[in-house]
Amino acid sequence: MPQIKAINHVAVVVEDMEKSLAFWRDALGIELHELRDVPAEKSQVAFLPLAGAEVELVMPTTDDSGIAKYLAKRGQGMHHLCLEVDDIEAMMVHLKGKNIRLINEEARTAADGKKYAFIHPESSGGVLVELYQI
Amino acid sequence: MPQIKAINHVAVVVEDMEKSLAFWRDALGIELHELRDVPAEKSQVAFLPLAGAEVELVMPTTDDSGIAKYLAKRGQGMHHLCLEVDDIEAMMVHLKGKNIRLINEEARTAADGKKYAFIHPESSGGVLVELYQI
Repeated sequence: MPQIKAINHVAVVVEDMEKSLAFWRDALGIELHELRDVPAEKSQVAFLPLAGAEVELVMPTTDDSGIAKYLAKRGQGMHHLCLEVDDIEAMMVHLKGKNIRLINEEARTAADGKKYAFIHPESSGGVLVELYQI
Repeated sequence: MPQIKAINHVAVVVEDMEKSLAFWRDALGIELHELRDVPAEKSQVAFLPLAGAEVELVMPTTDDSGIAKYLAKRGQGMHHLCLEVDDIEAMMVHLKGKNIRLINEEARTAADGKKYAFIHPESSGGVLVELYQI
């Protein structure tokens, strides 16, 4: 049975990166590890590591991405919870067997080699859950 | 300067604890450490530890609590992000000095001795942030 190992990150959708960093970095004092443009996801992402997990601030850079539409509809706040899993393909097969609705039918591979997939909030009680295999 | 040490937990507000556990415990396979009634907060809480952090499922047990009203208004989903801090009083003084709005003027102490306080989402870009000193 595949295993969930840890909370990998909590992603927060933000309107204005500088204002958000004024809170998370400057007021709370969490170190900003990296601020990265991710053109493939039409967003800019700030990575703020915390003891093996991370807060990620995601700012849409266009109006037409999924996250831009989420921001327009729901406003700023927590967007998804990412859980690390030891075997993402096995977990996806297992979840399908439990009638859990997945957003991605197959795991995708990011530029850095991580495999990821999303579970539909309909199956998780309103939480957009991302699975990550590092 | 007080320091944020880790993500302590992500709290998820749920309508039906058994349905939620069918996802988090039975489908994802995360161990349920404890299911506790918390009359002081008019809720039932499921604690699912993950590598030093935790997913907490919170189900209101009355209609008149803050979290019950949140659920009625916003629906199920992530409710707050709890960060562990080494010195909560010093952090609260520091945050007030940065004009961050706090929900609690003073830290509260839980039955188990933990000190906690909430930062208003207005100051944190829409995320209800809890601070914990263990």
